[in-house]
Amino acid sequence: MGAAPESFFQSRWVGRPEHVAERAATDLARGFRAAGVAAGIKPSGDLDVGLLVCEEAGCTSDARFTASGAPAAPVSLTRERCELGAIRAVVVNAGNANAATGRPGLENAAKMQGAASMVSGVPERQIAVCSTGVIGVPLPMDEINRGILGCAHALSSEGGASFARAIRTTDALDKQVCVEVSLPSGTVTVAAQCKGAGMISPKFATLLCFVQTDAAMSAQTCALLLGTCVKRSFQRISVDGQLSTNDTVVLQASGASGVPVEPETEDELRLGEAIDAVMRELALRCVRDGEGARRVGRVIVRGGDPDGVERVARAVADSPLVKTALYGGDPNWGRIIQAVGLALPTGDLVPPIPIPIDIAIEGVPVCSASSGVGHDAQALAAAVSRAEVEYEITLPGEGAEAECYFSDLGHEYVTINAEYTT
Amino acid sequence: MGAAPESFFQSRWVGRPEHVAERAATDLARGFRAAGVAAGIKPSGDLDVGLLVCEEAGCTSDARFTASGAPAAPVSLTRERCELGAIRAVVVNAGNANAATGRPGLENAAKMQGAASMVSGVPERQIAVCSTGVIGVPLPMDEINRGILGCAHALSSEGGASFARAIRTTDALDKQVCVEVSLPSGTVTVAAQCKGAGMISPKFATLLCFVQTDAAMSAQTCALLLGTCVKRSFQRISVDGQLSTNDTVVLQASGASGVPVEPETEDELRLGEAIDAVMRELALRCVRDGEGARRVGRVIVRGGDPDGVERVARAVADSPLVKTALYGGDPNWGRIIQAVGLALPTGDLVPPIPIPIDIAIEGVPVCSASSGVGHDAQALAAAVSRAEVEYEITLPGEGAEAECYFSDLGHEYVTINAEYTT
Repeated sequence: MGAAPESFFQSRWVGRPEHVAERAATDLARGFRAAGVAAGIKPSGDLDVGLLVCEEAGCTSDARFTASGAPAAPVSLTRERCELGAIRAVVVNAGNANAATGRPGLENAAKMQGAASMVSGVPERQIAVCSTGVIGVPLPMDEINRGILGCAHALSSEGGASFARAIRTTDALDKQVCVEVSLPSGTVTVAAQCKGAGMISPKFATLLCFVQTDAAMSAQTCALLLGTCVKRSFQRISVDGQLSTNDTVVLQASGASGVPVEPETEDELRLGEAIDAVMRELALRCVRDGEGARRVGRVIVRGGDPDGVERVARAVADSPLVKTALYGGDPNWGRIIQAVGLALPTGDLVPPIPIPIDIAIEGVPVCSASSGVGHDAQALAAAVSRAEVEYEITLPGEGAEAECYFSDLGHEYVTINAEYTT
Repeated sequence: MGAAPESFFQSRWVGRPEHVAERAATDLARGFRAAGVAAGIKPSGDLDVGLLVCEEAGCTSDARFTASGAPAAPVSLTRERCELGAIRAVVVNAGNANAATGRPGLENAAKMQGAASMVSGVPERQIAVCSTGVIGVPLPMDEINRGILGCAHALSSEGGASFARAIRTTDALDKQVCVEVSLPSGTVTVAAQCKGAGMISPKFATLLCFVQTDAAMSAQTCALLLGTCVKRSFQRISVDGQLSTNDTVVLQASGASGVPVEPETEDELRLGEAIDAVMRELALRCVRDGEGARRVGRVIVRGGDPDGVERVARAVADSPLVKTALYGGDPNWGRIIQAVGLALPTGDLVPPIPIPIDIAIEGVPVCSASSGVGHDAQALAAAVSRAEVEYEITLPGEGAEAECYFSDLGHEYVTINAEYTT
């Protein structure tokens, strides 16, 4: 157990919580074994089938899925057939999304689940199935089965690195971490493996994230922690406003540490804080890894209308005009006003005076009551050419707040997405 | 009156109506005079202030504006202070949007209206004010006034070309047309000048468009024709899903032809057909001129749910993944499924089987009941590398249909928008 040479927590917007210590990123929590093998699904020949198994029969869990109206077969299957509070194993392939594959796709997802059950001894209903890659192509089942069998032979507490590599597609940045969390009741471990370059989908860079802990807690606690943390992390990022058919996030608790985490205790609070920091940093890393991204933006919107601040935050984060300005290192607040106006449509209403909107970039007020404010343009241009840029927008009213993290939009995004063929 | 060397009607999706004949594109309808001058607002020194005046005191009209919740000062002013059914003159500047300029911006818009009234003799309440360009910068009123005065001296029935040039910003394609329409009651002229190449959304195209006819008709008929035609043209296009603060479309009828167009007559039908064709072709030209666009896509969505088909059409038209694939000439239907899924979110619902979605590209079925269909990939790739590409999507149910025209997303869009500074 050595400290990582460079901290996992790289964003100024997250930070390592006080009670958290970093371990080698590829470590797993007690009670988990994993593996990843090359089964010939990725044309590159890289690792492409992964298996993660909890040895504890009493493993608890929860999962969240894409909100897409056209979910991939593994998502439909896992949602319908799994005991989401007792997922013991996860079987994953990369290189083929098994999406838009009709009934044969559902049957193939079921076969993946069956094969993983056969080799691991875990009941089918406790195995989550995930796929990521190209949409609309039948899953190559011979390769899948060979991969699952290979994983079964390779399963190990040292298998975190190969599992993490097997779930990746276009990711350039590593998205794996292991931390120790000091709780009043004892020390527990949290490990996570994630993939996703860009919000989701450029080049079908679906978001998959698997989080494991050896804390002992109920499925209800898993659901509470995962629900809260997903809302603050993966639900708050955007690279291109797209939505994958395959997004899946799973939290599992083996209990192997023997440290109980009871509801509404300091233990639960600290563990939640750790999982939150891990998932937010992973989410930010997905944004930072967005195809061609140079910079990450954070927009915070405050005002009196909860729906309004949410819509405005999304509109700014998804605006190609704001994103290209971020890419160009241009503090172009006129485009932000434009995005705010898009999210707050008047329809046929005629407001007597414009809605007063305040905008600050990197703490510098640039717009007050919808009118430009004099500022040091040179200093601001320097500030927005750094790796992280913060935008604060204030609408009328108080009490509501929403934030979004987003990547810029640059030439590399176009190159990658215009030249990639199904 | 010579026929244009190349037809204005270039899209296979529009076509010249039977009773329409083309005149020189820069011609104006009888009763109108126009001018455009260089007043020093555009850094390039190009024409940037335009004035269009109807000589007939009985001129009728109607106008439509951006749905932005942060409309520019000229939009607020025109909406509030103009008799929209009796607009006789339009004063326009390019190079500065007079948006996000607060109360001083409203005062400057009022001053533009006042200056135009002074030089033209048209009452202020009959003068529409439009601006386009950079957001958040005070309007340079000395230049504006000099420009308006210059226009007053230059006003002429030959001024259509300079007026059209003065309203342009980043447009590369010409967006001006003049046609004669044979009605049962006589022959009338329809002329139009348009600008718009970015910040264009299906909710309402970001653009300025001025349409004039010398037909004699009521303000109610103007409202009916403009409302119908805007819905079928500028409200159905997308370059980047953004929404301008300044969009304005004005239709004016001078009556100078002496040809009456009464409600519910063959005259009204044919004139409507002509204005519809003119506005749809102009809208398509805005898409074709979308910053860096190589190709134009048309998506038609059919199904049983009017809101659903509308949402899906816009999600496909606005999807950066679909747009980059169009740019790359890639018939990547997996990305279309992804966009459909984004527009039809299940939330926490678990559909027992995926929603059956059919997709055809250039008439070739590629996806049936959400599952891939074998097809000649080489022939399809050739088809999607042409200038116009059609996508048909069929959702469950019948009776509802929505369409959208959209540009691709390419390197030139990034270059233009990353390097353009406020």
